[in-house]
Amino acid sequence: MKASILTIGKEILIGSILNTNSKYISEKLTDMGIDVIRQVSVDDGLDEIVEELNYISKSSDLIIISGGLGPTDDDLTRDAVAKFLNRRVYLDQDEKIKMEERFNRLGRTMTPNNLKQVMLIEGSEKIDNHWGVALGEFIEFNNKKIILLPGPPNEMEPMLDYYIANKSFTSDNIIIKSIDIIGLGESIIEDRIRHMEFNDKSISINTFAHGTYTEVKIIGKNSDKDKLISSIEETVNSLYREFKTHIYSENNDDVAKQIVDILIKNNLKISFAESITGGMLASAITDISGASNVIESSYVTYSNDSKNKNLNVSKETLKEFGAISENTAYEMAKGVKEKSLANIGVSTTGEAGPNSSETEVGNVFTCIYFGEDNYYTKHYFFSGDRNKIRRSTVNRVLSHILYLLRKNFKE
Amino acid sequence: MKASILTIGKEILIGSILNTNSKYISEKLTDMGIDVIRQVSVDDGLDEIVEELNYISKSSDLIIISGGLGPTDDDLTRDAVAKFLNRRVYLDQDEKIKMEERFNRLGRTMTPNNLKQVMLIEGSEKIDNHWGVALGEFIEFNNKKIILLPGPPNEMEPMLDYYIANKSFTSDNIIIKSIDIIGLGESIIEDRIRHMEFNDKSISINTFAHGTYTEVKIIGKNSDKDKLISSIEETVNSLYREFKTHIYSENNDDVAKQIVDILIKNNLKISFAESITGGMLASAITDISGASNVIESSYVTYSNDSKNKNLNVSKETLKEFGAISENTAYEMAKGVKEKSLANIGVSTTGEAGPNSSETEVGNVFTCIYFGEDNYYTKHYFFSGDRNKIRRSTVNRVLSHILYLLRKNFKE
Repeated sequence: MKASILTIGKEILIGSILNTNSKYISEKLTDMGIDVIRQVSVDDGLDEIVEELNYISKSSDLIIISGGLGPTDDDLTRDAVAKFLNRRVYLDQDEKIKMEERFNRLGRTMTPNNLKQVMLIEGSEKIDNHWGVALGEFIEFNNKKIILLPGPPNEMEPMLDYYIANKSFTSDNIIIKSIDIIGLGESIIEDRIRHMEFNDKSISINTFAHGTYTEVKIIGKNSDKDKLISSIEETVNSLYREFKTHIYSENNDDVAKQIVDILIKNNLKISFAESITGGMLASAITDISGASNVIESSYVTYSNDSKNKNLNVSKETLKEFGAISENTAYEMAKGVKEKSLANIGVSTTGEAGPNSSETEVGNVFTCIYFGEDNYYTKHYFFSGDRNKIRRSTVNRVLSHILYLLRKNFKE
Repeated sequence: MKASILTIGKEILIGSILNTNSKYISEKLTDMGIDVIRQVSVDDGLDEIVEELNYISKSSDLIIISGGLGPTDDDLTRDAVAKFLNRRVYLDQDEKIKMEERFNRLGRTMTPNNLKQVMLIEGSEKIDNHWGVALGEFIEFNNKKIILLPGPPNEMEPMLDYYIANKSFTSDNIIIKSIDIIGLGESIIEDRIRHMEFNDKSISINTFAHGTYTEVKIIGKNSDKDKLISSIEETVNSLYREFKTHIYSENNDDVAKQIVDILIKNNLKISFAESITGGMLASAITDISGASNVIESSYVTYSNDSKNKNLNVSKETLKEFGAISENTAYEMAKGVKEKSLANIGVSTTGEAGPNSSETEVGNVFTCIYFGEDNYYTKHYFFSGDRNKIRRSTVNRVLSHILYLLRKNFKE
């Protein structure tokens, strides 16, 4: 089954927003085994949309359209689809009543334009919108399908999820499995998979770096369903044999959230001593709801002086080994654990550039400190600009924290 | 002049990456007064690309293509464009020699595939790539233009910038001006502009929220150039009269970078006491190269206990007014200024949700403390989820810091 995605709106064409809808829809369809052959964006013009539909409908079995269903005069998508299909639009009386009630409740006046959002195309199936006003629609014509959704991602995404979860669009035998790996970089993972020499032609394996973790995506297609199931199983098993405890999830779980969950479950507190990451680690953890149970205080110690005064990193260590060293990372992590009375102290120190100081740009040392006999220092070397080096440090440290928590504590 | 953007690659169609290239190119073209009428993405297939070019060339005067110029067998863009134009490709001998030298220097072996990246289409103008290997091309045909660029953003973006900076693609009279506003929310700015009642039909004014600042973009089109210039001037002047010192830039300057610059120039140090933002403010400042001159240490004080112990927020204040209060924000900012020996202390405290504690979700207090007679507390109420509330807090605080620095210190 071949699909095209059509997103509509001037804000996309003038480059004022990133088109996250196309990515979201593509990902969902790919996961369902549907081939996305085209993403297109055009302006909110009646003729432009009709022309584009004429063209893309030639090669697509499924067209997903988002945007242009709002109440203003610029919002012409529904009319354009109706024109393309040569069908009429009508007012959905149930939705009109609901809308009137809503406006009354809010004490606002309804304008004729508002009613545009509860119009439907003849012969379509309504897709409810519990997150906003504009209705979605599912339409079949000439053995092809159109799904019409509003543009705001916070409406479009749940509407699509909800709708396609209850539909089957393809009859091919497709199985997709994801395996999520922490504590190893993507290039190492790719390399190890390449050496595993999978020869099953019905299976394709791709890795996707998600920052804190790497997803290994296995897509299997085979007309013989039993064979397909056993192929997938075999592949998954060999990956588990290869990567063992580095596999932490099969559901793209958020690494920071997993960390907070394990810390809460084990009644543990964490604290950070950040130099190169300057607050990014604390921010990643406090981004998770429930973080107040696991973090009380955290420190950005940028200068040598503040590493010494706030965290008791000794002046001798700073002088002999430098601020960017394994020894300093160790003393920072130990110091912050003791200072904050946490169970785990985590430190980062390194050179993010653009100008190198005492050490080369990209040089990073980290330490995860549980206790005197239980700490883990790491030395990384990251390439890229300032932002990328800091980001990579955060990702690898979070990944490593989760790996160690899973090994040492109950989930 | 009408333009279409064609981005090529499976990673876009399966939704594994966000299409930042389309946004980047759209923004650049719009700024040049070119109408972007379509963004399309298709797979790396010879026939798919040729077919798409046949279609989009009908309505476009300019086509910008990116992606699919790499060395692998999947990279077919150049061949497809040549096929579409019915022209031959040839090996650029100069570039071939440069490539051989590069491979020799690195001690690597060159494969025939590598040479694909230094092929050119007959009659094209070469666009140099100083950031990678694959060459770009500019091609004219039937009064239309094609620009061919590689896919990686770190190569595509500077190549496009460099190339279009030296070209003029349109003869219309277009003037675009941006005015950047800090210290006021976008909705307030929009509202005030609406009340200014601009009546000049040749001018359009739009606001774009960039997080830390709001950009007011003025686009003027007029066949009479002198009239256009005076229209733009008048509009800009009225905006300056309306927003005065809230206008900080006309170049979309980065707010955090401006803050660091002013702090360095005035030899000032800043320190943060973050509760709701949990490290995000420190991280925004340390993201700027040169931050080590203006920040020595910074604190995440999530618990009441750590607000008291680390920052000397009095237990009475926490008890009487609560942690999320103007009084606590004030004592946090004062405390962190004194503790870190900085010149400016900045604090955030609030409820990001999802569950409300002592106060409503979205309630935020901040304080920017220069000294006993010179501090600024603010009370915000933000809607949205946890992430949005935290993000909004960071944006508005950075915006407010810059506003105060510009008022009180030399730039």
